[in-house]
Amino acid sequence: MTTAYQKLSARMQKINDLGHLQAMSHWDEAVMMPPGGGEARAQALSTLSSVLHDFITAPEIAEEIASAKTETLTAPWEQMNLEIIEKNYRRAVDVPSDLVAKFTRAHMQSEQAWREMRATNDWQAFLPLFSETFKLCREIATIQGESLGMDPYDALIDQYSTGFNQAIIDPIFSQLKAELPNIIKNIVAKQADENLLPITGTFLVEQQRQLGLELMQALGFNFNHGRLDVSHHPFCGGVPSDVRITTRYSDHEFITSAMGICHETGHARYEQGLPTAWSGQPVGKALGMAIHESQSLLIEMYACRSAAFMEFLSPLVKRHFGDNPCYNPANLLKIYTRVKPGYIRVDADAVTYPLHVILRYELEQQLFTDQLSIKDLPEAWDQKMRTYLDLSTGANYQNGVMQDVHWPAGIFGYFPAYTLGSLIAAQLFAAATKAHPQIENQLKQGDFTTLFSWLNKHVHSRASSVSPTTLIQDATGGPLDSSYYLKHISERYRE
Amino acid sequence: MTTAYQKLSARMQKINDLGHLQAMSHWDEAVMMPPGGGEARAQALSTLSSVLHDFITAPEIAEEIASAKTETLTAPWEQMNLEIIEKNYRRAVDVPSDLVAKFTRAHMQSEQAWREMRATNDWQAFLPLFSETFKLCREIATIQGESLGMDPYDALIDQYSTGFNQAIIDPIFSQLKAELPNIIKNIVAKQADENLLPITGTFLVEQQRQLGLELMQALGFNFNHGRLDVSHHPFCGGVPSDVRITTRYSDHEFITSAMGICHETGHARYEQGLPTAWSGQPVGKALGMAIHESQSLLIEMYACRSAAFMEFLSPLVKRHFGDNPCYNPANLLKIYTRVKPGYIRVDADAVTYPLHVILRYELEQQLFTDQLSIKDLPEAWDQKMRTYLDLSTGANYQNGVMQDVHWPAGIFGYFPAYTLGSLIAAQLFAAATKAHPQIENQLKQGDFTTLFSWLNKHVHSRASSVSPTTLIQDATGGPLDSSYYLKHISERYRE
Repeated sequence: MTTAYQKLSARMQKINDLGHLQAMSHWDEAVMMPPGGGEARAQALSTLSSVLHDFITAPEIAEEIASAKTETLTAPWEQMNLEIIEKNYRRAVDVPSDLVAKFTRAHMQSEQAWREMRATNDWQAFLPLFSETFKLCREIATIQGESLGMDPYDALIDQYSTGFNQAIIDPIFSQLKAELPNIIKNIVAKQADENLLPITGTFLVEQQRQLGLELMQALGFNFNHGRLDVSHHPFCGGVPSDVRITTRYSDHEFITSAMGICHETGHARYEQGLPTAWSGQPVGKALGMAIHESQSLLIEMYACRSAAFMEFLSPLVKRHFGDNPCYNPANLLKIYTRVKPGYIRVDADAVTYPLHVILRYELEQQLFTDQLSIKDLPEAWDQKMRTYLDLSTGANYQNGVMQDVHWPAGIFGYFPAYTLGSLIAAQLFAAATKAHPQIENQLKQGDFTTLFSWLNKHVHSRASSVSPTTLIQDATGGPLDSSYYLKHISERYRE
Repeated sequence: MTTAYQKLSARMQKINDLGHLQAMSHWDEAVMMPPGGGEARAQALSTLSSVLHDFITAPEIAEEIASAKTETLTAPWEQMNLEIIEKNYRRAVDVPSDLVAKFTRAHMQSEQAWREMRATNDWQAFLPLFSETFKLCREIATIQGESLGMDPYDALIDQYSTGFNQAIIDPIFSQLKAELPNIIKNIVAKQADENLLPITGTFLVEQQRQLGLELMQALGFNFNHGRLDVSHHPFCGGVPSDVRITTRYSDHEFITSAMGICHETGHARYEQGLPTAWSGQPVGKALGMAIHESQSLLIEMYACRSAAFMEFLSPLVKRHFGDNPCYNPANLLKIYTRVKPGYIRVDADAVTYPLHVILRYELEQQLFTDQLSIKDLPEAWDQKMRTYLDLSTGANYQNGVMQDVHWPAGIFGYFPAYTLGSLIAAQLFAAATKAHPQIENQLKQGDFTTLFSWLNKHVHSRASSVSPTTLIQDATGGPLDSSYYLKHISERYRE
């Protein structure tokens, strides 16, 4: 006889399968699709969404969850799987579908408008559309919060970074906010005297691609289960058994693409390391965006932007682009650890980045508690930029409040994931190198086996079978703590 | 109020949308997917198939068809759309689903076995699996035939080449069978004395690709609605607004790939020329495989393997690969019109090809009327090969009865499409050049505009709104007639 849990499990596999097609279509759209294919593709994906929605909200699921709770599950991961299934189901069914449809229309409109209005810096025209998107997002967050027993903004944070909330984030971000502005001033002052040889010349895409593939090889990317391609915005997509990472090449430098590939490979190794025994089940998926980002940032920021790794990178670069002093390890390290406060989050270095995130996080908190209204965002933004990074955006909305796609697209509560990821990465990297001091020497050889075997054991193989709190505690022996990050930047940037 | 026809139409759009994802996934699988992605992809596609099956066989469709028949439809194409919807529905629901499942398992098994057993020439081991596949295919054909009022084998032919049947095919194939063996002997004898300069050297893939793209450009391929890539077996896939064609490059010659690209571009232009007003509806799709093949063969065999086109191709080739007498128009034409009887259908030239098809067609007819049993296929095959092409396959099963994937995959009734396509192509090309005698001169410039504007008017834009019989009659002024093909080869090969 089929148990209720088995029935649920079969449903999850089907939902996963349709998600597979969705993920691959998104990859294709970003990487392969000619522009004229867009309309029919949007139509096809909208039909798939509605089919998926019917699967996800099938009324039988409620009964099956209730029955499954009375059954004896054979493994702890099945228990966790059931919990996630229930949480996902409540998220899907508790919000009335006409509200979801209104929100979808609103954020599609504001995102579309944003693409044009950001270019023309037109905050005033964008404001009414954006206000509507925010209003509906908040309505949904309120319903989901009630349903899950969470504050509305926490419900959004939890949606992206499972297991995190303001109670965890606030003290951590407070410490960063208190210390980073001074740290940045010191680093900038120190770097001002540095003699950095800039990289100049033209770099063939095919050679950059070869370099990227060699980095992926060193990082243990499994090419039997994934590929590297090109897209306008780099990302890690696809499915665990077929991970599609992308990059973007510039003719003028290889620095960004090379490190971007390391970053995406960090994401990819997480996906490729998820336990195949749980594939197709919610418990077998990655543990939210904060942990996902920790895996890419650990590789990029902690392992690859290190003095040790430059010993490996330098000869690779020279083999492709010739022997030039600017490719010496010390100079590459200077390039890769340059700190420079700027307006744009996505261009920020590892030290100023958290302040971009904290700024957005605090503004989101204020919006969700009515301490700030949407129309006053630019002024509040400018004030925080001046406080945190000593820069004024003024009426430069396109590089201020209008710079990110997240808000226009109705995505609130996502930003903390980036900095949580960085903090978790610092803490995990400290634990891994403490357990295996040879890791640093291995990085000099481009040997990541010890590091990844530790990560696989403590992160990848656990998938979503534990909360991030448990995962961090088990892996590092303590709760999330920003001092690892602060210690790391102090060592790397001010030594 | 929504009419029943409108409801059906909305269902068809959804079915079309899921088909879009299916088509793109197949393209991705053949072109992009790393091997390790296969298992999850198969699982995802199997789920999609079952979702699609539920959409296609929804019981409400029967009532909606019945109601729609009583409604006044505003356009003749809607009437045709309704007819196709009904026919597709009956095909889908009249066969019991457990029989479909048994057949799917059987042909997947025999196809898989064939991939190994063809290599080892093991007909005996293959026979029981193949017999089971044939048996189940015949059971399904019998049910569908009864349901559609057709002979079982006709039901299969009609499934692939809508509107064709043995009554149409038999006299046409008889004429070819009677005349071709002698024609071939004469051509081979004549060509034996020809001085053909063989192509030698190494040809860079990137240059071959450039040549291919230039050919596609000349052929009016719309790159805003499609792409060219590489796959093991060349094909034309994707959807009308995003047509994905593929080719395969050899280092040793560019001849096959260049002409293969012309062939696939013929398919692609058909898809790209389908009326967008009917997109998503059955009436808006291509009119079966025989007509589809006519569009690729018209471009490849009639337009591009011509003396006129060699005037355009020769300088293109020389620009890419250097000035060499073997790239002169006359020599390229010799290469592209070489006739040589061989064992393998897919390697056959335009003159011997029909005999490969007729052989298979006749054997299929005999199998479906119990005049031949599966186990006696090799002997019957050998006998026909000797009669038609003066070659003996004997116990060389891998180049005989086991050479094609069609039968192991449970595909019977498909082969006639190839030769019907060629005959239709000859007749259409004769009509087009009769209406527009300037086409030949235009081909010398690589100018296909007049030809494609004729094809678009008479074939592409009509999609499935008429039967092939009507389409051929309207376009050429007469019924399908193999004399156009015979006249063509007589002119091209024996003049």
